Amino acid sequence: MNERQRARRPGGRSARVAAEVHQAVTDLIGERGYGNFTVGDVAARAGVADSSIYRRWGSLATLLTDVALTRLNARSPMPDTGSLAGDLRTYAANVAREITGPDGLAVVRLAVALSNNGQQDLQARDDLRDERTRQLQSMLDRARERGEHAPDALDVLDHILAPMYIRVLFGMGPLTPDYVDGLVDRLL
Amino acid sequence: MNERQRARRPGGRSARVAAEVHQAVTDLIGERGYGNFTVGDVAARAGVADSSIYRRWGSLATLLTDVALTRLNARSPMPDTGSLAGDLRTYAANVAREITGPDGLAVVRLAVALSNNGQQDLQARDDLRDERTRQLQSMLDRARERGEHAPDALDVLDHILAPMYIRVLFGMGPLTPDYVDGLVDRLL
Repeated sequence: MNERQRARRPGGRSARVAAEVHQAVTDLIGERGYGNFTVGDVAARAGVADSSIYRRWGSLATLLTDVALTRLNARSPMPDTGSLAGDLRTYAANVAREITGPDGLAVVRLAVALSNNGQQDLQARDDLRDERTRQLQSMLDRARERGEHAPDALDVLDHILAPMYIRVLFGMGPLTPDYVDGLVDRLL
Repeated sequence: MNERQRARRPGGRSARVAAEVHQAVTDLIGERGYGNFTVGDVAARAGVADSSIYRRWGSLATLLTDVALTRLNARSPMPDTGSLAGDLRTYAANVAREITGPDGLAVVRLAVALSNNGQQDLQARDDLRDERTRQLQSMLDRARERGEHAPDALDVLDHILAPMYIRVLFGMGPLTPDYVDGLVDRLL
């Protein structure tokens, strides 16, 4: 395949391989749990060479966070409703729905697994956090540009996201719409 | 040993066995991680019979939460300073110190491990949560009896404990005294 063909099928084979590798990771997390599989296991399951995974992702930790970020961005995208209250309510409701669903604690599990280990794992965890924080910051910046008074991203983390995650982690659900909206209203 | 002798050495052998079993659990968590050892492994490490562990704790999940609760109560006891602000500041500072220390995420790790599994594990997680909530509630009740206006225990969880746990989990420490006191002041 030459460059022109590659350009005509943007991400064709590449996107297919990524999807297969992501699915293999998701399956292995479900079957064995974090820490109980290697890049070699992922490669075998996805039907690709180990070297393809290392070339593209660099490490298992980076691959794991890529899978988690892809899932987060698909299921809890940052909304743009035109008002800060609308954005935060929609965002909080998306997160609440996601984390009370099947394997809703995926991000917490991943963060726990990566916190256990070495510098490369911690860096991957920090990159995941920073990417989501950047997205949240963009949402808050848009509000400020509209002249709204917006909280800091860390306040959103502390007083909207953290309570929901901890309640699910300790089995204190369900996260009712009243509860979730109440977290947003309290912060605003 | 007859009943009189047992009474003269309260908890002598029993307390020693419990301490050995607790230490074996702590060691195995550190070496293998949750989900990678059995009651048999704990018994072998502690030098006791499997049946002794089942008789006393009933299940691995109950034993794991007993170890976690013992640790929590030793390191983050509920204070009684005479004022609600003093109690909450001291409590929050204790928790902050504990969760930023070695294996400070022990409770989060345990909750994640227990959330993965069956009804018995979920029950053990709920019992651990309920016991700590009861202790916190007593602290808040004492404040109300003194005539102070106290928040609900769930508000303390949502807006003091949850932010600290999530910040440590995602590598957003350190938890400075200003930050921790700020969480308390904001809630009060």
